[in-house]
Amino acid sequence: MAESDRTPVTVIGLGSMGRALAGAFIDAGHPTTVWNRTPGRAAALVERGAVRAATVAAAVTASPLVVTCLTTFEDTRSALEPAATALPGRAVVTLNSGAPAGARAMAAWVTGHGARFLAGAVKNVPSAVGEADTLLYYGGDRTVFDEYETALRTLGGDTVHLGDEPDLAALYEMAVGATLLPALVGFFQGAAVLQSRGLEVSSMVRYAEKWLDMIKSLLPVYAKEIDSGDYTDAASSVNLFLAGSAHDADLTEETNVDTAWLTPLHDLVRRAAEAGHGEHSISALTEVLRKPERAA
Amino acid sequence: MAESDRTPVTVIGLGSMGRALAGAFIDAGHPTTVWNRTPGRAAALVERGAVRAATVAAAVTASPLVVTCLTTFEDTRSALEPAATALPGRAVVTLNSGAPAGARAMAAWVTGHGARFLAGAVKNVPSAVGEADTLLYYGGDRTVFDEYETALRTLGGDTVHLGDEPDLAALYEMAVGATLLPALVGFFQGAAVLQSRGLEVSSMVRYAEKWLDMIKSLLPVYAKEIDSGDYTDAASSVNLFLAGSAHDADLTEETNVDTAWLTPLHDLVRRAAEAGHGEHSISALTEVLRKPERAA
Ligand SMILES: NC(=O)c1ccc[n+]([C@@H]2O[C@H](COP(=O)([O-])OP(=O)(O)OC[C@H]3O[C@@H](n4cnc5c(N)ncnc54)[C@H](OP(=O)(O)O)[C@@H]3O)[C@@H](O)[C@H]2O)c1
Ligand SMILES: NC(=O)c1ccc[n+]([C@@H]2O[C@H](COP(=O)([O-])OP(=O)(O)OC[C@H]3O[C@@H](n4cnc5c(N)ncnc54)[C@H](OP(=O)(O)O)[C@@H]3O)[C@@H](O)[C@H]2O)c1
Repeated sequence: MAESDRTPVTVIGLGSMGRALAGAFIDAGHPTTVWNRTPGRAAALVERGAVRAATVAAAVTASPLVVTCLTTFEDTRSALEPAATALPGRAVVTLNSGAPAGARAMAAWVTGHGARFLAGAVKNVPSAVGEADTLLYYGGDRTVFDEYETALRTLGGDTVHLGDEPDLAALYEMAVGATLLPALVGFFQGAAVLQSRGLEVSSMVRYAEKWLDMIKSLLPVYAKEIDSGDYTDAASSVNLFLAGSAHDADLTEETNVDTAWLTPLHDLVRRAAEAGHGEHSISALTEVLRKPERAA
Repeated sequence: MAESDRTPVTVIGLGSMGRALAGAFIDAGHPTTVWNRTPGRAAALVERGAVRAATVAAAVTASPLVVTCLTTFEDTRSALEPAATALPGRAVVTLNSGAPAGARAMAAWVTGHGARFLAGAVKNVPSAVGEADTLLYYGGDRTVFDEYETALRTLGGDTVHLGDEPDLAALYEMAVGATLLPALVGFFQGAAVLQSRGLEVSSMVRYAEKWLDMIKSLLPVYAKEIDSGDYTDAASSVNLFLAGSAHDADLTEETNVDTAWLTPLHDLVRRAAEAGHGEHSISALTEVLRKPERAA
């Protein structure tokens, strides 16, 4: 009974990410049951050895460990509704994006139906699922994490339990993920700038990669400044960025690139300078991003 | 005459970056002359062996290679005005930030006064000057680069000549640098989110670093998509980011963090979807950032 060595797993939601998760479980030898609203998406996984459940209730019943990967928590809950009576005794692990409040509501619903709950996030693209360096972090029931850690580690070698609160992964996901869209739009703007001169975007990739490494090297420094609230030892000051803002306007004039999206960023820098942070580290922007406490 | 092995160098502008540049030249054994508007800033460099020139004209006269590091091209030109008659035969290398148009105007002024011109950019912080991996790139007179490459390489081992146009470094600087402020503000927003829950910002540094590595790994893929104009093989689609926009609004409600700066980014994503890029790669945002050609 070699198969029974591995925890039977159910994967619900077979989009790009869900298929990658199910594929990793199959490759690692887990008896894998799959379900998707649009049944056709299960075909390739079934060929690789997965069992397609006819209903979501059958899918939940099939395995002690149920991993969901739908678009949102709301989608997940509505997909699981018909399986509510099958939940007692299961461990439900969600791996979608979403707000902390969504994770808390999901936790209340799942535990209210007698299942244990863990909410995680895959900090990577589907093609990286299963690799040793791929990061997934989880918040919620520690007993689920401890019991199924080996199975969960199948999805990525860098697997972490952040704490018992079910919204911690959602919180870190949003905190950590906040660099993605802004950094990408910055890169796409740079791409459009080069194209305006007939240059290949590929010619800047090496420099842009190195630049991200440079940014990366600043993060521990800025974290320390923000945690201590001491912004006085400024390697790059708010005023330096304020001077840089002017150059962006010049660039808009010279190229056919729309830099309007930068206006609120420049406003933040200006507001930080006005609040007395001009000679402070750029990390003092954190103070401006924090809204005044709301009246009770 | 061991000293004469190394090209005599003048550094004009002794802010954080200028002092680092002069320090690197001194450490490498270059006879180094320095000048700064506020003379006191030269003191520590003079102690390390630099010669302080009494006037900017004397500074320019002192060395065949003159490196400037002032805030802008306009500042550089106004500082060099009194030294205009000393320029013939010199090689002037600027290392400030600025727009391509500023670099072209500077080139016209410097070459108009009989000096050769190279405009570069330091893609790093002052403390990284002199390290093997530190990147500096230059555009402009190739003969200056070839003649003084060894001296220039003192400032960073990864030293590149991009081409003969004097505004190329400014162009790449702005293209490559476009990720910095947006990525940092994303990180600071994440920091404010964690602080709203009483968590240490340092606790997310490891994850944020890894996330930047992930973003880095996407750049060659996106560059290829943009260069080819083929956005159809989408690992992460515009629609996926569109769904993510909704979560940011939830977060603003739950924490005391001001996410208003994200609104124009979400608008770009929405406009890309409306333009038919919904199922395309997020790199299709480049098409939206490019403004329609201006009427002639
Ligand atoms: N792709 C990535 O790069 C990536 C990276 C990290 C995290 N994530 C997160 O992972 C989650 C899934 O992403 P994905 O890329 O796999 O998305 P996707 O390809 O769009 O797939 C979405 C999945 O959710 C299902 N679904 C949505 N609403 C449903 C509902 N009301 N009832 C039943 N099923 C529903 C879809 O079923 P149908 O097939 O029937 O439509 C499909 O299986 C998202 O939260 C995403 O943010 C994705
Ligand atoms: N620091 C960084 O992390 C960094 C990184 C990459 C690139 N850069 C670029 O390097 C350049 C210099 O930056 P920095 O950090 O060294 O700036 P900084 O510390 O503010 O120093 C500015 C320097 O410019 C001089 N200056 C400004 N306007 C002048 C004028 N009209 N006439 C004469 N001198 C003038 C200042 O002289 P006084 O001492 O008399 O005021 C000072 O020496 C900028 O373009 C910056 O964008 C900086």
